Amino acid sequence: MDIFEALFTRRSIRKYLPKPVSDEDITLLLKAAMLAPSANNGQPWHFVVVRDEAVRKALAERHPYAKMAAGAPVVIVVCAEPDEHKGAEFWVQDCSAATQNLMLAARGKNLGSVWCGLYPREDREGVVREILNLPPHIRALSLVVIGHCEQPFSEANRFSAEKIHYERW
Amino acid sequence: MDIFEALFTRRSIRKYLPKPVSDEDITLLLKAAMLAPSANNGQPWHFVVVRDEAVRKALAERHPYAKMAAGAPVVIVVCAEPDEHKGAEFWVQDCSAATQNLMLAARGKNLGSVWCGLYPREDREGVVREILNLPPHIRALSLVVIGHCEQPFSEANRFSAEKIHYERW
Repeated sequence: MDIFEALFTRRSIRKYLPKPVSDEDITLLLKAAMLAPSANNGQPWHFVVVRDEAVRKALAERHPYAKMAAGAPVVIVVCAEPDEHKGAEFWVQDCSAATQNLMLAARGKNLGSVWCGLYPREDREGVVREILNLPPHIRALSLVVIGHCEQPFSEANRFSAEKIHYERW
Repeated sequence: MDIFEALFTRRSIRKYLPKPVSDEDITLLLKAAMLAPSANNGQPWHFVVVRDEAVRKALAERHPYAKMAAGAPVVIVVCAEPDEHKGAEFWVQDCSAATQNLMLAARGKNLGSVWCGLYPREDREGVVREILNLPPHIRALSLVVIGHCEQPFSEANRFSAEKIHYERW
């Protein structure tokens, strides 16, 4: 798939077919996520791959906007282990870029995905920390629900010339 | 270009040919950036496109790691106008995803780019605010330097199985 087709047709997909996502595809998505840029090349990310139905259902029940996790074949939680010697204060940006790479790679494999926010909502991060047994020094940024789509992807357009400024504001 | 080629060969590129980047390419990059996901679809991003040599040189001189901006054809500063009614606390994540889309679109046009961090370093954000005349309510997340590459792109591999956890941590 062309990079621009992936960029222009990646949408938030919340309904999935009852079809598993292969180990090979999950590894490819994680490989792409780990190729995001990071401050000082710190690569602070970690990933928790959740296929277990009980764990998915617990996440779906306790995150206010992740109901779709209950019926999806797989959920990937993007976490971070910030390193104070390697641009720790940029961990949110690093892991956001990794999340976006992961979602574009999903699009490249015709998988739908949706980004459910965790940090900086302490309640949501706390719920995920408890369910996934995250150590205290590990942060949880995003919960990405992934599955095969029910419907074909369509192109989006959110271009707004008013958001562009030239030379200075 | 295939989405996976773009994902796997996007590297930080800091040296550029003395060749301009077309208006058409810049618009395409911004269109891709604006298609990033955002909390509550808030789309908090703004972009300052800087071609003016004096402005680029000022940015290069005053950001500790953006020297390459002086010799690049274009710099795009990704800003935000967080909206408290639309997931304002997620603006860093939204604008990081937009920055990553922008860089992948650059790769798709065979343009090299590098992400220079601003927020949360107050000194860097302040310098950019002053040079670009950003209003007080506007945040500056990243400064992306863009240009045609001197060298061919090569594939990266940062895959680390130790970063992957299954079902729980």
